[in-house]
Amino acid sequence: MNWHNELTRLLKITYPLIQAPMLGITTPGMVAAAANCGTLGSLPVGGLSPERTAALIRETKMLTDRPFAVNLFVYEIPPGTDGTAAAEMQQQLQSMAHDAGLEYDNKALSSFRHYSYQEQVQVLLEENIRIVSFTFGIPDETTTRTLNEKGILLIGTATSVKEALLLQEKGSDIITAQGIEAGGHRGSFLDKEYLPEIGSISLIPQIADRVTCPVIAAGGIKDGRTVKAAMALGAQGVQIGSALLASEESLAIPAYKAALQQMQDTDPVLTRSFSGRWARGIRNAFMEAIDRTGRAIPEYPWQNSLTSAFRAAAQKADQKEYTNLWAGQSAAGAPYLSTATILQQIIRETEALPLF
Amino acid sequence: MNWHNELTRLLKITYPLIQAPMLGITTPGMVAAAANCGTLGSLPVGGLSPERTAALIRETKMLTDRPFAVNLFVYEIPPGTDGTAAAEMQQQLQSMAHDAGLEYDNKALSSFRHYSYQEQVQVLLEENIRIVSFTFGIPDETTTRTLNEKGILLIGTATSVKEALLLQEKGSDIITAQGIEAGGHRGSFLDKEYLPEIGSISLIPQIADRVTCPVIAAGGIKDGRTVKAAMALGAQGVQIGSALLASEESLAIPAYKAALQQMQDTDPVLTRSFSGRWARGIRNAFMEAIDRTGRAIPEYPWQNSLTSAFRAAAQKADQKEYTNLWAGQSAAGAPYLSTATILQQIIRETEALPLF
Repeated sequence: MNWHNELTRLLKITYPLIQAPMLGITTPGMVAAAANCGTLGSLPVGGLSPERTAALIRETKMLTDRPFAVNLFVYEIPPGTDGTAAAEMQQQLQSMAHDAGLEYDNKALSSFRHYSYQEQVQVLLEENIRIVSFTFGIPDETTTRTLNEKGILLIGTATSVKEALLLQEKGSDIITAQGIEAGGHRGSFLDKEYLPEIGSISLIPQIADRVTCPVIAAGGIKDGRTVKAAMALGAQGVQIGSALLASEESLAIPAYKAALQQMQDTDPVLTRSFSGRWARGIRNAFMEAIDRTGRAIPEYPWQNSLTSAFRAAAQKADQKEYTNLWAGQSAAGAPYLSTATILQQIIRETEALPLF
Repeated sequence: MNWHNELTRLLKITYPLIQAPMLGITTPGMVAAAANCGTLGSLPVGGLSPERTAALIRETKMLTDRPFAVNLFVYEIPPGTDGTAAAEMQQQLQSMAHDAGLEYDNKALSSFRHYSYQEQVQVLLEENIRIVSFTFGIPDETTTRTLNEKGILLIGTATSVKEALLLQEKGSDIITAQGIEAGGHRGSFLDKEYLPEIGSISLIPQIADRVTCPVIAAGGIKDGRTVKAAMALGAQGVQIGSALLASEESLAIPAYKAALQQMQDTDPVLTRSFSGRWARGIRNAFMEAIDRTGRAIPEYPWQNSLTSAFRAAAQKADQKEYTNLWAGQSAAGAPYLSTATILQQIIRETEALPLF
């Protein structure tokens, strides 16, 4: 198995494995562990304040000398949301919290603070970050030009050929092709009416055929077989997300890690209930309660902010029914091991597979 | 590349490629062409009368001496449907036909004749068919015992690990794992509330890990890369469907074949509009009109019967907006070649890929 290709050369890594940026799960320790074993670590900072972004980057730098990617949520913050719908959602959350015995306080809508990715980019430049990955859209032209001029690598996220072509045209150096199997938020940003729901075995070769830059496969990659399949399909690298959910460095609560052990392949479904954006997670009481009201769910990031304190309370109580349990379709049995052990095991398994 | 494995041994074929049974598309000529080039041909007869079933089998036998599979829709026919909903649907179809300039006559519900798979099995036995594949469910115990005792191979269709395990337990010798990428009808039969929507890169290894019988990957397979990926994931064989849609032996109307050339990866979506069962096809006016009314769609096979004459009229007029254009997520650019050429090309491409 020869791992060397254009992607490893661009990213200056030994193995073309990318630790997926999983907001709420990924710690600086996970990023550093990935970087230190010759793969690419990715620090998720989507929606965080510039101060928090800087602190996390510095914490990561304390743990590794290797470069790592910082992952942004790239979108324009909508000016506001329907106050009545938000108030109704807060009422429902309060009543659910009461029933579940969770304590938390709703905050006034006016107190929500949403940070633009542009504010974060300033921090990334100051911290001399060399690789910026992003999802939910395409950075504005000024931002892209600034990053391109400084030789910073841009990794965009596509869920369709059309998105991949647009990302490449607008300055991405590498494309992450997110198949429908992936856990967490869908990166889709073009077609609002029909969310692209393309499986990796269809998506990867079609994107690889149309773009000239290297493609990273995301979704369903968990072991030697899946790495090999993704590379056969035309990917130069693979992103590992769900396989790290139960790792020692993961922030997932114990009940979440335990739920992954019993999970069936049909379990994680797409929902807008937690954040207002489509994301894949294990079904639970929260998801079903919100999705089944038929109530309009405020758009991201409003719903995300509305449910934030509620989810924090559930996590504090190790209560898996009331917080997001993001998981991909191959997340079942995610190992209770260190990030380094999990990644090294995938590399060894891939190398041990017979040539065919 | 060594093609020989348990699947090729069981099916007595040279290459572990299966021509997908595509009702309304697949002709005896397509089945025979597949069989004659050392792959498995599959004759679809789901829902056809015993007489028509026999005629198609005999026609196929005239064109090949090789064994081929006959594919059944295995489900219990519901005793009836809501007459009011059916009448409303007929009214909508009539009005759509008028707007589209299509001529057809609605038939009385009482004139619909739905044939059970048990009636067809009788024909298969008489015709000495050695391989029976099926979808939508599991044959009843008596049927399974009869087929098993005669050494007839059973190939069941699964869209989740749970379905695969049940199929194996109930007598299937081979499992077709249908990923979400596949065109046409979903074979799902267990979970009515949450249709399994599992991508092949997640589905194939999880099924292969849990069953002891050979697994065939279906969905998104179109070329050497996708064959190799499916085999890396643990499949012993692959099913080729959409890649044969525009073949010389296909019954697809010219406008349908042309639509495949321009198709985008995001285009084919899941719909119940044509048959009452979920199936993947290229978006068109019919699908959008029915899906957007929000009207309850009668269950399969009622909706299928209700739309049958309408679709036939559209096909006769080579009008792609008003008939089902089943297509998988890799159907774009389906070649205008013979079935044999297409299958042989996929085999050669796979063999030519470098070992890795």
